[in-house]
Amino acid sequence: MSSLRLTFLGTSAAAPTAHRNLSGLFVKREGQSFLFDCGEGTQRQMIRFGTGFALDAVFFTHFHADHYLGIIGFLRTLGMLGRTEPLALVGPRTAATFLPKVIRLGAEDAPLPVTIAEAEPGDVVFRGDGYRIEAFATDHRIASIGYVLIEDPRPGRFDPAAARAAGVPEGPLFGKLQRGEVVRLPGGRTIAPREVMGPPRHGRRIVISGDTRPCEGTMRAAEGADVLVHEATFGDQEQARARETRHATAREAAIVARDAGAQRLVLTHLSTRYDRDPDILLGQAREELGERTPVMVAEDGDGIDLPLRD
Amino acid sequence: MSSLRLTFLGTSAAAPTAHRNLSGLFVKREGQSFLFDCGEGTQRQMIRFGTGFALDAVFFTHFHADHYLGIIGFLRTLGMLGRTEPLALVGPRTAATFLPKVIRLGAEDAPLPVTIAEAEPGDVVFRGDGYRIEAFATDHRIASIGYVLIEDPRPGRFDPAAARAAGVPEGPLFGKLQRGEVVRLPGGRTIAPREVMGPPRHGRRIVISGDTRPCEGTMRAAEGADVLVHEATFGDQEQARARETRHATAREAAIVARDAGAQRLVLTHLSTRYDRDPDILLGQAREELGERTPVMVAEDGDGIDLPLRD
Repeated sequence: MSSLRLTFLGTSAAAPTAHRNLSGLFVKREGQSFLFDCGEGTQRQMIRFGTGFALDAVFFTHFHADHYLGIIGFLRTLGMLGRTEPLALVGPRTAATFLPKVIRLGAEDAPLPVTIAEAEPGDVVFRGDGYRIEAFATDHRIASIGYVLIEDPRPGRFDPAAARAAGVPEGPLFGKLQRGEVVRLPGGRTIAPREVMGPPRHGRRIVISGDTRPCEGTMRAAEGADVLVHEATFGDQEQARARETRHATAREAAIVARDAGAQRLVLTHLSTRYDRDPDILLGQAREELGERTPVMVAEDGDGIDLPLRD
Repeated sequence: MSSLRLTFLGTSAAAPTAHRNLSGLFVKREGQSFLFDCGEGTQRQMIRFGTGFALDAVFFTHFHADHYLGIIGFLRTLGMLGRTEPLALVGPRTAATFLPKVIRLGAEDAPLPVTIAEAEPGDVVFRGDGYRIEAFATDHRIASIGYVLIEDPRPGRFDPAAARAAGVPEGPLFGKLQRGEVVRLPGGRTIAPREVMGPPRHGRRIVISGDTRPCEGTMRAAEGADVLVHEATFGDQEQARARETRHATAREAAIVARDAGAQRLVLTHLSTRYDRDPDILLGQAREELGERTPVMVAEDGDGIDLPLRD
C-alpha cells in the first residue's frame, strides 16, 4: 500500500546546536516528496539522511530566517545538479514578494526555475493522487500558516455477507461489486457497491504546525490526525516568553493534540536549552496526554513511517 | 609563546556532502579569532568543532554562494546571543554593495552591527599585536582576493659570545642588551642590541588562497609561508574544467607551494567527486612536491597548530 514517511531534518529552534539543525521536515508519500521549511543547512541534512533531492514542492510556514535560509543554497545545488523542472515554493502571504529576493541573492549562476505561490488558510496547496495538502491558520509574530496532508478516505471493504443478504449470488457479480461497478441481479433489481461495502476507510492525515501559539487553526487541522507535528520551543517555566514570542510550550502542544483527538504527537523546534534534555518537555506533554496518546520529541534524522490503518 | 591554530570548518567545493561542509576556515591567534569565508552551515560547524563565536573579523575571498551564505544566519545567531560589539566584515571589491543586501535579508530582528570594508590586493585588512593580515590578488571568475597572515619577525636571540667579543663585561649590561637597550661600555663606546643578537627570527606566515587559478598573487604571498592553504577543486583529469571555471587542480596547488617555497601545503575545497577519495589529489600533489614538503587534504574538523619555529 501507499507509503508515507516523515524524516526530521532539523529540530532546533532559532539557532542550530551540535546535534540539532534548523527547521526542516521531509515528507515522502509514495513517489512524491515535500519539504516543510528549509532552515540553513537543510540540503546537507537531506544528504546525511538520504532523503534524495527529488522534491515536488517546498512549503514554508513563515519567513523567519531559521525556516527559510537554506533554500538559497539548496536551489543553487539543484541547479548545479542539472534540475530543470521548476520547483514549487509555497508560503504564507508575503511569499510572493519575499521569496524572489531571497532566491535572487544566491543566483550568481543561472537559478533553478521556481513557481512561487502565496497560500491563505483553507487553500489546497498541492493535489496528489488520492490526497491533498492544505494550509491552515496559525498564530505567530509574522504572517504564518501550517500545513495538513489529507488523504481521501478509501472505499470500504467488500462485505460478502451483506452482498448475500442483498440477494447477490456468489460469482462474477461479487467481482464486479468489488471493482466498484453497479450490478443488475437476475430478478432485475440493481445493487450499488456502497450497499455491500463496509464504511469508507480512514485516509491518513498529518499536520505540521510551524511556529505558532496553540490555536484554533491547528486544533481543527489536527482533528483525528494520525500525527500532529507541533512546535514546542519552550517548557512550563518559559510560559510567559512563549506567549510573548508567539511560540508554544510542550504542554500547550499536548493540549492541542489531546483536544483535537490526534493519534500521536511529535514535538519539534526546541529551544537550545532543551537540546540535550528534552525529557523535561516530554514529561510536561505526558501530563496532559496521559498514556493513551504517544508523544515523542523528534531528533534530527528520526523517520516515522505511517502505515495505513486497517 | 603565542598560539596559532587553524580549524577547517568546511572543505567541500560548491555543494556540501555528508562529511564535508561548504567553505569556512577558522584561525585563532592567541586571543583573536578570524573566520575566512562562511558557507552555509558554518555556524553549526563552529559549534561542532568548538571554536567559539568570539570573532574579530570575517574575511571573504569572494562572493559565490558557497563562501558567504552562512553569514546571514550566523549574524542572526550572534545577535540572539547578545553580541553588541560590531563585527568587521571584509571582502574584495563589491563587498560594500553586496554584503549589506545579504545581511539585511536575514534581519527580521535587529541585526548585529557590522562594519564592511572592501580590500584591494596589498591592503592590510587587520593589524594585531605583532602581526597583520593582508589581502593579495587571486584569479577567479568574479572579484576575489586571498589573505595572508604575517607575523612580524621576532628579535634575534642574545648571543653572549658576540657580546663578550664586543667587549661587553658579563653582568648587568648583558641583561640590558637582552631587553633591547643600548649600553655604554666602561670605556665610553656604545653597543646596540642588534650587534650582539643573532639574526631576527622568523614570524609565522599563513596563506589562504580562496578560489583561484594558480597565480602570481598567491605565489608571492606564499613565499616561505609556514602553511599554504590552497584550493584544489579538481584533479589532473579535470584540468580543462579547472581552467574554464578558474579553479586549481591539486597538482597546480602543489606547484605554487613548491615554487614559492612554502613549508607545508593543505588542500581544501574539493569537488564532490573527491569527497571520499582525496588520495588521488594527494598523490598528484606529491608528484610535484616530493618528500620534502608535507601536504595534506583537509577534512572538516581538522586542526593545525603552528608552533613558533626556533
